[in-house]
Amino acid sequence: MLDIRQQRFVIIADGQFGPLTSKTANSCIRYFPDRIVAVLDRRHAGKTVQQVLGFGGAIPVLGDFERAISRGATAVLIGIAPTGGRLPADWRGWLEGAIRHRLEIWSGLHTFIGDDPGLASLARTAGVRIFDVRKPPTDLPVADGRAAEVDAYVILTVGTDCNVGKMTAQLELRDALVRRGHRTRFVATGQTGIFIEGWGIAVDAVVADFIAGAAERLVLEGAKDADIVLVEGQGSLIHPGYSGVTLGLLHGTVPDAMILCHQSRRDWIGDYHGREPWVRIPPLAEMVALYERAAAPVRPSRVIGIALNTFGMSETEARDAAHEASEATGLPATDPVRFGSDLLADAVLRHALAAR
Amino acid sequence: MLDIRQQRFVIIADGQFGPLTSKTANSCIRYFPDRIVAVLDRRHAGKTVQQVLGFGGAIPVLGDFERAISRGATAVLIGIAPTGGRLPADWRGWLEGAIRHRLEIWSGLHTFIGDDPGLASLARTAGVRIFDVRKPPTDLPVADGRAAEVDAYVILTVGTDCNVGKMTAQLELRDALVRRGHRTRFVATGQTGIFIEGWGIAVDAVVADFIAGAAERLVLEGAKDADIVLVEGQGSLIHPGYSGVTLGLLHGTVPDAMILCHQSRRDWIGDYHGREPWVRIPPLAEMVALYERAAAPVRPSRVIGIALNTFGMSETEARDAAHEASEATGLPATDPVRFGSDLLADAVLRHALAAR
Repeated sequence: MLDIRQQRFVIIADGQFGPLTSKTANSCIRYFPDRIVAVLDRRHAGKTVQQVLGFGGAIPVLGDFERAISRGATAVLIGIAPTGGRLPADWRGWLEGAIRHRLEIWSGLHTFIGDDPGLASLARTAGVRIFDVRKPPTDLPVADGRAAEVDAYVILTVGTDCNVGKMTAQLELRDALVRRGHRTRFVATGQTGIFIEGWGIAVDAVVADFIAGAAERLVLEGAKDADIVLVEGQGSLIHPGYSGVTLGLLHGTVPDAMILCHQSRRDWIGDYHGREPWVRIPPLAEMVALYERAAAPVRPSRVIGIALNTFGMSETEARDAAHEASEATGLPATDPVRFGSDLLADAVLRHALAAR
Repeated sequence: MLDIRQQRFVIIADGQFGPLTSKTANSCIRYFPDRIVAVLDRRHAGKTVQQVLGFGGAIPVLGDFERAISRGATAVLIGIAPTGGRLPADWRGWLEGAIRHRLEIWSGLHTFIGDDPGLASLARTAGVRIFDVRKPPTDLPVADGRAAEVDAYVILTVGTDCNVGKMTAQLELRDALVRRGHRTRFVATGQTGIFIEGWGIAVDAVVADFIAGAAERLVLEGAKDADIVLVEGQGSLIHPGYSGVTLGLLHGTVPDAMILCHQSRRDWIGDYHGREPWVRIPPLAEMVALYERAAAPVRPSRVIGIALNTFGMSETEARDAAHEASEATGLPATDPVRFGSDLLADAVLRHALAAR
């Protein structure tokens, strides 16, 4: 299998490429622009990604599939969901063409491309991988605590809500720790993280009994060649829709420590658009206590830092927010995207050393 | 569809019927012996269920399938898992025979009988239902809090561990409340409960994102014609393998109140045979606080009683255990199987009235 750093993607976003309409495509462009050789969208053909999204630089948007993959592509990545859920005839033609050119197919769709008999058989014949990143392994165990036995120091990001920066915080922290020479592994538990790393398990797609088992397997895998393992958190203990995933991930990961992620100025759990706000986010110190108490019966684990997402705030406001979060919790707090992760890296190393 | 009280089952337990080897069959016999017309097991043919299990009375164990179903059966229930996971040829013959006789097929297997093309097509032609009780609905929502809006008073059983009596406590409480004239509905969230009631969702078989959504749908359904809804709990907040299911169920149910279930004298989470004990069960008062704190951010909910399982203890020991549990928590405590559910029914009605 190709090393993830050598993959070069054409992203299919036909008819839907735009700032608000192609979330998966846009995440990929944000996180690994240098691995993307073209975006396929006949509507915006001829523009650059920058012109369509406002970021992404000179990556071309093309309308011709053959031309797109001729730019050195090794894989085709499906970056939008087809309208109506079914694979359009055009897409099928492109995917067949890609497989014939021996390109891999990467997909985060809920309907698995590998379950399509025609494409699956074509891929088998061509010896090409169809990578449905949301498809869970079929042999997951029920967790039995083996993640607690790894030598690596394991950190899980936890959140006040969904979509507050739990993946980004770990990626930034990974970079900071690697720069300091520490063998550090990021462990992806959601679709975008899996696209970035080339491996992982989308834990929210796993059958409920195996959430913690999936987390356990990921930690064991991540700890094989690393001294620090950074697990991407999901959801929130107070998000009624996803709290089960969050707690299963916490108990399956049995982390040495946690980092609490929060979007500054978000006061309510935010996933209930169109309905009244339902769950109010308690003060950060209370969230810290909630996570520590939830972890404690299985394994005592402390929150050792706060990662804020201060998007949309001025620099001064962001610094004030970090200061306030730190005052309220007694923990180091920063926006890692804005101010770097040194503060959090220091906290991790201090605690990891103390735990030895 | 036949009313559940009119169903008459032949249970398939061929070659495995016994106190320790046919868990599903045995649960069915324990909970609805009057709906079972025969058990199919060629090894024990000619005996009664009582002779094999030590309970179950005069239900015959037969070796001949045609004779078994001729006793007024309306459905065949698969009460064991086939060795090796695949449907043996004998079983297939029986199931085909059952369908031709227009009997329903009920199964709690992880592999769905309805996914077998031959049996599925036969059942379609015959107009017969194959009921895979562990198969989740395909259209589950992400929870959005609608369960909090029902008029009924909703109670969830929660536990210190798996397998401590969360279903039994609700069934006993249901009977006590119905006897007092209250419109009360038991809501099944696991296989045995679904066999008993004829409907429900096995929440541990649901994809992780939809645990709470499944709970929400069950509460809405249960509240349609009841003033009190009793939801069967699953797992435990401190059971690392299943805590995600437990929290998702709690947040999706958004119960008015909880009843904590505990097996007296169990000190450790018990599902890790063959390995060292992993998680110690904290004192009951701490468990009460853990559940109340986990519920609070979504909806404040109190534990209003303790249901003990004192199996294997003497009557005096059991009374002492209930007294101690009550002293430790300040809540009414009883073993509902041994001493009846009046104490818990009183607590439910008192709190339900106060909440009006």
